[in-house]
Amino acid sequence: MEVVHDLLNYKGLKIVQNPDMFSFSLDSVLLPNFVTLNKNVKKILDIGCGNAPVAMMLSTKTNAHITGIEIQEEVYQMAKKSVDMNHLDEQINIIHGDVKEWYREMESDQFDTIVCNPPFFKVNNHSRRNESEYKQIARHELTLNVNDVIQIARKLLKNNGNLAIVHRTERLIDIITEMRKQNIEPKKIRFVYPKVGEESNILLIEGRKNGSPGIKILPPLYSHTNDDEYTEEVKRMFY
Amino acid sequence: MEVVHDLLNYKGLKIVQNPDMFSFSLDSVLLPNFVTLNKNVKKILDIGCGNAPVAMMLSTKTNAHITGIEIQEEVYQMAKKSVDMNHLDEQINIIHGDVKEWYREMESDQFDTIVCNPPFFKVNNHSRRNESEYKQIARHELTLNVNDVIQIARKLLKNNGNLAIVHRTERLIDIITEMRKQNIEPKKIRFVYPKVGEESNILLIEGRKNGSPGIKILPPLYSHTNDDEYTEEVKRMFY
Repeated sequence: MEVVHDLLNYKGLKIVQNPDMFSFSLDSVLLPNFVTLNKNVKKILDIGCGNAPVAMMLSTKTNAHITGIEIQEEVYQMAKKSVDMNHLDEQINIIHGDVKEWYREMESDQFDTIVCNPPFFKVNNHSRRNESEYKQIARHELTLNVNDVIQIARKLLKNNGNLAIVHRTERLIDIITEMRKQNIEPKKIRFVYPKVGEESNILLIEGRKNGSPGIKILPPLYSHTNDDEYTEEVKRMFY
Repeated sequence: MEVVHDLLNYKGLKIVQNPDMFSFSLDSVLLPNFVTLNKNVKKILDIGCGNAPVAMMLSTKTNAHITGIEIQEEVYQMAKKSVDMNHLDEQINIIHGDVKEWYREMESDQFDTIVCNPPFFKVNNHSRRNESEYKQIARHELTLNVNDVIQIARKLLKNNGNLAIVHRTERLIDIITEMRKQNIEPKKIRFVYPKVGEESNILLIEGRKNGSPGIKILPPLYSHTNDDEYTEEVKRMFY
């Protein structure tokens, strides 16, 4: 069952979703509000764009051209519909394909910025239970993992282009290690905490291709209040 | 001019300081309040112990035997005096020496825990101005840098022993990269922020020798209020 939802009232955008596949998540709101955008950013790639929430939110913040690539046919169709419905087809181009194949054919050094909300669960027997194949591919590292994303970014980013990723905090060390290995220097991190007094669960990290060392740890972001509502800062991102 | 100060009223401890060399700092209070201590911790090493504030504060939190090593003769003498004055000479042993020479002669795998507040400024022409040689050695990477500390810890820590370091946040990526290289897996980080809304300036990080991957990012610690006073959490560490 496919349904059209408001993109959480995000600047009037509407998005096609199927709750049996997956729904819009907090991660998709955090990433476009974290990535560095300025007038020099002309071409953005969204790896594993899903039904294109990040690409559509980015379109309200930048005039850059945005390419999204999605491996799942049905999800790609939803992304296309959402883009068309919002008359964003001049700014956003959605491609159906496996980015791990696609990038090999692409010329290097062509994107100013790459964003990615990759599948984040490691694959194990337990993790596959009670989930549709759609959700498994979107959420588990079956077809794409964060190391793939960093290696792809190394090729496709222009010199000094930025890669911004949202991921689970517990993977921080793996991500930093792989970024350094691929000459994508971590420059900016924001840790998201579910509530005051708890450990961080979500990581926002941006690295710069061939950047010089020097990291900034931004002020913490709390996603929820003690009453389990979104904090004011998160609400401002949604609306 | 050498003077005896209260160790900031810390459990009644007194400490010998010389303001011309350096004074007690926030870093020295944060580190003993961060490092993992439990009944299995029997032997602790404090690398570059200075006038021993960290070692003395640790003595109020653990019964473990603590070894401190300090390269500067005059600073070593102050540390010795402080330890004697507080009748801690059975628990704390201060050694005068260069840890980079000393550790080569030592047997491996003998400490449960290593702590270090290393010199943190990179050496450049600018950095040496207006400072005594004492301060230069204590604060700049002239005789010891954080990579040395991690390599020394790799040899001297027992299997699963912990290395806890306080450093500048901007060095996070270097420290994580070197820890992984030396099989000291980062397990716990706490970022210290000068005030709400500002970027982190101080990093507390603990890694475990041959530990399995998996990092916890603890709740943020704010050192100062908007009125430039220590926050309640920091005050509780001092007194």
